[in-house]
Amino acid sequence: MTNPAKYHIGLVIFPDMTQLDVTGPHQVFALMPETHVHLLWKTLQPVISTEGMTILPTTTFDNCPSLDVLCVPGGAGQVDMMVDTEVLEFLKLQGKTAKYVTSVCTGSLILAAAGLLQGYRAACHWAFRDQLAMLGVEVGTERVVIDRDRITGGGVTAGIDFGLIVAAHLCGEETAKLIQLLLEYNPAPPFNVGSPENAGKVLVEQVKKLGEQLIKASLIQTKQSAKLLGV
Amino acid sequence: MTNPAKYHIGLVIFPDMTQLDVTGPHQVFALMPETHVHLLWKTLQPVISTEGMTILPTTTFDNCPSLDVLCVPGGAGQVDMMVDTEVLEFLKLQGKTAKYVTSVCTGSLILAAAGLLQGYRAACHWAFRDQLAMLGVEVGTERVVIDRDRITGGGVTAGIDFGLIVAAHLCGEETAKLIQLLLEYNPAPPFNVGSPENAGKVLVEQVKKLGEQLIKASLIQTKQSAKLLGV
Repeated sequence: MTNPAKYHIGLVIFPDMTQLDVTGPHQVFALMPETHVHLLWKTLQPVISTEGMTILPTTTFDNCPSLDVLCVPGGAGQVDMMVDTEVLEFLKLQGKTAKYVTSVCTGSLILAAAGLLQGYRAACHWAFRDQLAMLGVEVGTERVVIDRDRITGGGVTAGIDFGLIVAAHLCGEETAKLIQLLLEYNPAPPFNVGSPENAGKVLVEQVKKLGEQLIKASLIQTKQSAKLLGV
Repeated sequence: MTNPAKYHIGLVIFPDMTQLDVTGPHQVFALMPETHVHLLWKTLQPVISTEGMTILPTTTFDNCPSLDVLCVPGGAGQVDMMVDTEVLEFLKLQGKTAKYVTSVCTGSLILAAAGLLQGYRAACHWAFRDQLAMLGVEVGTERVVIDRDRITGGGVTAGIDFGLIVAAHLCGEETAKLIQLLLEYNPAPPFNVGSPENAGKVLVEQVKKLGEQLIKASLIQTKQSAKLLGV
């Protein structure tokens, strides 16, 4: 980009994040005109996702301009982020001035731990919705929840739907439609099991069993954060 | 993973790739049990996508084990990849023994340039379907095209549907369903414009105009590759 950016969007990345929480919306945001997308972390050192994908930050917290969109992804590292003072302070600071404060997946638990979602409706990965409620947030089960200047997506793949909705808010529907066609976003999931409502109890229990350790660790942290926040 | 992997999946990454072509299927593959996912390139030096995302390769071509799934993404860098001898030789070598030879988006043009899709039906990003046909490949307009051991996805976001279908082939439907629910893949596109068929002529022309330079450069290369391949 040779022109100065009209919009600055910041995606926070962190160790043990879920990479698609970041890469889905990043792909959409990168196609918005006059937009600079920042991959934010404390340093410029490589960040490794749970899946073993190493991504380089582009901008440190200290060098981050005032953001139009602040976006926080989720993933197992979320538990550590909920007590990381440097991260929480950065979110609080940018959250004061950002046009939109947003998240994907369990990123909403981090936003809530920073005190940025109390009094709002927000989305979360389905297996962590009860934990978001414990933090004093009204939980929405829509794929993308819009409440004033808070736009939050559900689990992982919701980040693409979320990204397009943010694009529509910032640049207008025509631009968002152009991006949707460019990305050929005409999904055809092979199975009808993408939400707990249509997957059925057996599959839901299997996924919860798989994620048991993380759900437990997150619950302990969520209870501590709720106490700290006084909610 | 402490156990030796049962499956080796290799995603080729390259400069000027479209990052979601890689990161979408990577997210799915990384959740497959007993699976080692490789991000492959000539060296271990960082690779920068068109969107400015820097991703580190995990494995060089020289150190790559025999793959169960070979997967090639697309993006603007595809034009250079179609004449990159080192890349084409690597694809030919792995293509001989891989259980599945696969691609997302314009990655099918690279596979075709390597001579790995002639006599097969395959998918491609909608704006490049005519170019895939010029390479002697029967073009399918489905989101994911399965023809014997070739599994190919359409444009960018098709990589998620594609990934789940590959997971079902390799690990069975129950595993693929588990991954789909874990990733909350219950898409809700904000607009009904994700394919050229439902987007309408005006939007299709706008996207083609946006991608004009790349489409032209790719066309020149495709014609040269077709001549070389004798198709």
